[in-house]
Amino acid sequence: MIVQLKTDISLLQTQNLIEKINGIGYKVTEVKTQAGNYLIGIGKAAYDIRKIGAMDGILDIHVVSDEYKLVSKKWKAKPTSIDLGDGIEIKDGDMAIISGPCSIESEEQIQRVIAHLKENKVSMMRGGVFKPRSSPYAFRGLGMDGLKLWYKHAKAAGIKIVTEVMQVSQIEEMHDYVDIFQVGARNTQNFNLLDELGKIDKAVLIKRGISGTIEELLQSAEYVFSGGNEKLILCERGIRTYERASRNTLDLNAVPILKSKSHLPVVVDPSHGIGIRDFVPQMALAGVMAGADGIIYESHEHPDKAYSDGQQTLNFTQSSDLIGYIRKIFEMRKSFDLH
Amino acid sequence: MIVQLKTDISLLQTQNLIEKINGIGYKVTEVKTQAGNYLIGIGKAAYDIRKIGAMDGILDIHVVSDEYKLVSKKWKAKPTSIDLGDGIEIKDGDMAIISGPCSIESEEQIQRVIAHLKENKVSMMRGGVFKPRSSPYAFRGLGMDGLKLWYKHAKAAGIKIVTEVMQVSQIEEMHDYVDIFQVGARNTQNFNLLDELGKIDKAVLIKRGISGTIEELLQSAEYVFSGGNEKLILCERGIRTYERASRNTLDLNAVPILKSKSHLPVVVDPSHGIGIRDFVPQMALAGVMAGADGIIYESHEHPDKAYSDGQQTLNFTQSSDLIGYIRKIFEMRKSFDLH
Amino acid sequence: MIVQLKTDISLLQTQNLIEKINGIGYKVTEVKTQAGNYLIGIGKAAYDIRKIGAMDGILDIHVVSDEYKLVSKKWKAKPTSIDLGDGIEIKDGDMAIISGPCSIESEEQIQRVIAHLKENKVSMMRGGVFKPRSSPYAFRGLGMDGLKLWYKHAKAAGIKIVTEVMQVSQIEEMHDYVDIFQVGARNTQNFNLLDELGKIDKAVLIKRGISGTIEELLQSAEYVFSGGNEKLILCERGIRTYERASRNTLDLNAVPILKSKSHLPVVVDPSHGIGIRDFVPQMALAGVMAGADGIIYESHEHPDKAYSDGQQTLNFTQSSDLIGYIRKIFEMRKSFDLH
Amino acid sequence: MIVQLKTDISLLQTQNLIEKINGIGYKVTEVKTQAGNYLIGIGKAAYDIRKIGAMDGILDIHVVSDEYKLVSKKWKAKPTSIDLGDGIEIKDGDMAIISGPCSIESEEQIQRVIAHLKENKVSMMRGGVFKPRSSPYAFRGLGMDGLKLWYKHAKAAGIKIVTEVMQVSQIEEMHDYVDIFQVGARNTQNFNLLDELGKIDKAVLIKRGISGTIEELLQSAEYVFSGGNEKLILCERGIRTYERASRNTLDLNAVPILKSKSHLPVVVDPSHGIGIRDFVPQMALAGVMAGADGIIYESHEHPDKAYSDGQQTLNFTQSSDLIGYIRKIFEMRKSFDLH
Repeated sequence: MIVQLKTDISLLQTQNLIEKINGIGYKVTEVKTQAGNYLIGIGKAAYDIRKIGAMDGILDIHVVSDEYKLVSKKWKAKPTSIDLGDGIEIKDGDMAIISGPCSIESEEQIQRVIAHLKENKVSMMRGGVFKPRSSPYAFRGLGMDGLKLWYKHAKAAGIKIVTEVMQVSQIEEMHDYVDIFQVGARNTQNFNLLDELGKIDKAVLIKRGISGTIEELLQSAEYVFSGGNEKLILCERGIRTYERASRNTLDLNAVPILKSKSHLPVVVDPSHGIGIRDFVPQMALAGVMAGADGIIYESHEHPDKAYSDGQQTLNFTQSSDLIGYIRKIFEMRKSFDLH
Repeated sequence: MIVQLKTDISLLQTQNLIEKINGIGYKVTEVKTQAGNYLIGIGKAAYDIRKIGAMDGILDIHVVSDEYKLVSKKWKAKPTSIDLGDGIEIKDGDMAIISGPCSIESEEQIQRVIAHLKENKVSMMRGGVFKPRSSPYAFRGLGMDGLKLWYKHAKAAGIKIVTEVMQVSQIEEMHDYVDIFQVGARNTQNFNLLDELGKIDKAVLIKRGISGTIEELLQSAEYVFSGGNEKLILCERGIRTYERASRNTLDLNAVPILKSKSHLPVVVDPSHGIGIRDFVPQMALAGVMAGADGIIYESHEHPDKAYSDGQQTLNFTQSSDLIGYIRKIFEMRKSFDLH
Repeated sequence: MIVQLKTDISLLQTQNLIEKINGIGYKVTEVKTQAGNYLIGIGKAAYDIRKIGAMDGILDIHVVSDEYKLVSKKWKAKPTSIDLGDGIEIKDGDMAIISGPCSIESEEQIQRVIAHLKENKVSMMRGGVFKPRSSPYAFRGLGMDGLKLWYKHAKAAGIKIVTEVMQVSQIEEMHDYVDIFQVGARNTQNFNLLDELGKIDKAVLIKRGISGTIEELLQSAEYVFSGGNEKLILCERGIRTYERASRNTLDLNAVPILKSKSHLPVVVDPSHGIGIRDFVPQMALAGVMAGADGIIYESHEHPDKAYSDGQQTLNFTQSSDLIGYIRKIFEMRKSFDLH
Repeated sequence: MIVQLKTDISLLQTQNLIEKINGIGYKVTEVKTQAGNYLIGIGKAAYDIRKIGAMDGILDIHVVSDEYKLVSKKWKAKPTSIDLGDGIEIKDGDMAIISGPCSIESEEQIQRVIAHLKENKVSMMRGGVFKPRSSPYAFRGLGMDGLKLWYKHAKAAGIKIVTEVMQVSQIEEMHDYVDIFQVGARNTQNFNLLDELGKIDKAVLIKRGISGTIEELLQSAEYVFSGGNEKLILCERGIRTYERASRNTLDLNAVPILKSKSHLPVVVDPSHGIGIRDFVPQMALAGVMAGADGIIYESHEHPDKAYSDGQQTLNFTQSSDLIGYIRKIFEMRKSFDLH
């Protein structure tokens, strides 16, 4: 049960509501986000929604039987739009393009990628400064120095920064330099990290776990939302299967399923999804047709010299072509009457 | 090693070639298809290809190190076109549409589907008369009676028949009524069936196994080809993973990978690939963008009354819309410079 | 619903029963096996079992809500014993050992394996004469000649033959030379083969599919049983997962689960289950502790010279040791009060 | 490359060594653990090991080509023993038993479990005070209060505490109350957590990731080891597959494979591995036969009243029986000559 509260609800009214909901055997969690105040009731008993709905201080009340509540479309049919400022948004009915290198490597690299994006009127740049690596001996990113350098140039160019946060202690130091915090596929169920990201007022892009279910992705988003942060983006980036011919198995089925279950925007990462440079464009376009609200992919001036993920990174020519194709195909998609 | 033989090669020349290849420690398989004669040499020793290439009776010789040989693009860069007669083809650079019910149910149903296809200028119809079912107590199809009825109407309408063959003994009785024999996902590694399908001169559409790898699909095609039948179509239809929100996980990565490894046409089955009616169109269009040469999907006048698979079957309105979208998006794809 | 019929039930009584069951909206399948006659009713309506149970000609009636019926423990709590003659049985509370090479290779090889088994008082020998191979160019077995040679020596030694049948047409020619027909992991859902094996009076060992569920294995067994053959053995042999350090992932969870759901005996194949020779003994013993009724594994005098699967095949010393360990550990297991 | 350093190596000698190794194009990581000092060289060039081995200050030098180095058996053939004090060890050739509830719930519960363990001469107790839960609304454990209460009673009884740490900030507060820090299956690739656990002198038990490979588990252990902590235990707890009849698929193949690749002890968690109470004992015993050095499982006085995981938790009678069986079967295993 989700109870949306009026902004001017009194303490006493809130107290009465909580008691009433507890009275039917439900546990209550209070949630206060940038956009509203809610009471989440969790329980199994049947109840008459009208008896609560008639109480003072309530905007609306919804029955949501899913394991996830606040991210469900069952109470909020209207798609959520993520506003990054400067007229830049990620939202249903639009096509966000996020591009950039796997790792931030140098000032020159940053400048060249930004120039490439500007040329193509792309306003969001991805890149890693803290890199999760299977081996402790691998390159782990430039850290805060790299982020600050990146910020200087991105700010000047009007480019938004999308980058991965790996642990709670990084949130504070990264906060002022980041527009979208990315939760990586190995951290989708790092619940403490999700809890803390619920406390800030920055957008969060959550990647599906390496072998995460669609349901688990939604529950991870629920963590952040119930912590107080509604600015959420879901990302399909391929799952682990037995198939070895591709890096991951890009599960585009997840796109229409996520869009039907949640009001949050969904983006697709074809670079990790297939892991083979020459096939990234096709998979990006397939993602658009599957219904994605955005594409996030890796680009680099010289992919073969990239510090990491070069084999799945587009060069600038491929990237420019892809951006054009995405926009064309998206315009055509808008003319179709799809679900 | 693949040695393409001249059509007028003499017995003695062939004998000499085999001895030569055996001489370097290779096992030789003779293959004679509708389109050509080949010697396949299997072995591990290094050898100088020119010494064999210079012998009499040879058209060409190719080194193919894959486990599959004749279906590989390494010796035949030109895509294979499957000609079904009456100007109907399945081939690279074209967009085949194959539609129809899961099961053939009645004469009336056949007529209505055919009318629907004709109206949309679709010339290939799918349908099951022998149905593989997990439970022995489920409906197993109308069998030969259904096929003959279907044939009568399809023939009159100029519609080609695509239907599943489940066992060797059915090939002969079905032969004259079928245009494309479909090998189902549970039979992808039914090697005896593949062997026998190699002996006929009809097109064969091989579905990827329920948990089959891309490599195994190509090896299964190799069985039919090496048996003597080059008329092969590969089909991605979703694989089994841990995800439960969809029937299967449609692996569209397989499309560009198969196209890059083999000269055979590749079609996508979004109906089994996602298993949810409302999302079949998006996944079909995603399949087109991933590079498919055709789409095969389930349609029925009243999906909710279908004997089987109703939940993933489009009604005629949805089907007509989808056909239009596929054709539009395919035209746009042709204008793109994709791999 | 399973209705067990009396052996002396009259045609009229049977007819009345079928009509009665049809009357509640259930489809009826008549099943006649070596051990009994049954009517299987499939439907969804609720009904009062006593109204049917009171009718003439009935031995007993059982409600079975599983997808599989006759192989379920819900109607037959007593474990099924597979009697191969000469006092050789596969059954609950006993420990069957089945050993031998992947492929039958030569008369000498047959004789040596038989000598090895006799020495260890093992009375069942496995071996392949028809080999399913991913590649059409690989060794496909000695065929009927190999089987007849094997039969000659096995018969003389009192050894039972366990071997794979790959297609319907082989059943008849193999019939007289085989004690247990094995259905391989690629044929677990070859429903025509299962149907035909239902018509013979020989034991059938069904391997779990390469990515088959436990439920599907039971449904495949249901095919054979409902076809008329109760002499069934289930085999866990590893499933396909993302893990690449072993050939398959031996799913020993399947052993207690299968034993709790079905009255059929369950054997474990550690050779295919892990695919690494040195670890086969541990996994065999783990299978015993998981509750298996038998172990089937590969042995060869010189594994490194075996035509196939040498890397997972025990030599005779390892095999003799393992047999001793299995028997000791099984004796200890019998003293435990496990589920 | 692993270079073991003498304890009395001088700064200059170390410096020389690093320069020498850098000189062949290798990156060097210095590692200082409780047990020794090492230089880890990572690179691809071929080199003559003797030229480095002859330098001053070196105890030994080893070529290790695996992705993981320090946890590999290639340089340290002798199994690592984890000494918890008071004569309690986890080591190869021994059988550790770790038992207790999923969640610590109350003082009474703690006392009863401890009494049960003492009665069975079990000296290690597991239990969760910080619980990772898919849903933000689920019970998340008693936290530090629960841990302190538990510590009080465990300390008095001579019982060692095994409990999960979920984030970096918990390490310090938990440190004095914990004997073995457990890294849960959702945190196996939480590299920051692993880094920090490398800095403390307490044992760490790392569970295999939900869909983690054996290789990834070893690399995660490498993180902790290279951070400075050699006191590591690996744990197989089941992986995610398509099979739905059990909670996870317990991959006992991992046991002999891990033991052959690493010198670290390996324990098996049958509770999460199958997730069905009645079958936990069989799977525990199967784990012993597969070669485990210990079993960790869930027990509770009243499993049906447990706050979490009751369906897979043994009651005290089942638990006592299991402990007896484990010890008997382990004694027998010691008499076998297994790999």
